[in-house]
Amino acid sequence: MTEVNPVEPRISIVALGVEDLARSTRFYAEGLGLPTTRSPEDGIVFFQLRGTILELFPFRSLAEDIAPGFDVPRSRFGGITLAHNVRTREEVDEVLASALRAGGELLKPAQDTSWGGYSGYFADPDGYPWEVAWGAFELAEDGSLVVT
Amino acid sequence: MTEVNPVEPRISIVALGVEDLARSTRFYAEGLGLPTTRSPEDGIVFFQLRGTILELFPFRSLAEDIAPGFDVPRSRFGGITLAHNVRTREEVDEVLASALRAGGELLKPAQDTSWGGYSGYFADPDGYPWEVAWGAFELAEDGSLVVT
Repeated sequence: MTEVNPVEPRISIVALGVEDLARSTRFYAEGLGLPTTRSPEDGIVFFQLRGTILELFPFRSLAEDIAPGFDVPRSRFGGITLAHNVRTREEVDEVLASALRAGGELLKPAQDTSWGGYSGYFADPDGYPWEVAWGAFELAEDGSLVVT
Repeated sequence: MTEVNPVEPRISIVALGVEDLARSTRFYAEGLGLPTTRSPEDGIVFFQLRGTILELFPFRSLAEDIAPGFDVPRSRFGGITLAHNVRTREEVDEVLASALRAGGELLKPAQDTSWGGYSGYFADPDGYPWEVAWGAFELAEDGSLVVT
């Protein structure tokens, strides 16, 4: 039996299939202030985050890139959430406020959690849910989480 | 008008809502060899990836954590793909082979892409699509992508 090496531990890109590339680019670039060198005219937009890149690509193009049969209507929740963890309780409120000012929708107001933290959820323009959370994890200097 | 600071550029966690926590943990831990200190008995499993953590959590619990109305049947494609980019063309074949040996489903055999790269897709046990790709991007020493 051939030994297969473990896969290197990383997610390189999180790609969101979006309805309106210009609208979503405005939300993430101008609304949340995430860094990008692209514009919607490029047909695909990357945000250089620490560790993992966020990609915006038209939903139909992304679905067709996978395989036939994936360009189907999305249900309200596709099963994946993204989380943005912060260093202080106050930052949860600040990031949620930024998201709402940018046109995001509040799904769950920030509140104390069962695991001793503080968190809330917003939806981006396509309804993709982001949790903004404080607590439970330590953050390294570069902002990445330390699982203990 | 109060100035709101840009959100720090990171995705802390990608959380997958899974049907069978033990099955998915086996797939990612034993099948792909991703590092974790958790077991399905903990009720939630984190994989310490570089930069962004991968979380497995029962679908219903994840949906309920967001807000009422999110515990709905998933459509075949929820609009989000994850990508694992590698340094060589050969590694695409190797990672796809590992995923299939681990019980993943091949969605798209590795092939030359329109953007001059080489890539394929597999689905994890819940059908979440991962692209395995080479080309277009440079990889930093730690494996993270460099957008140019």
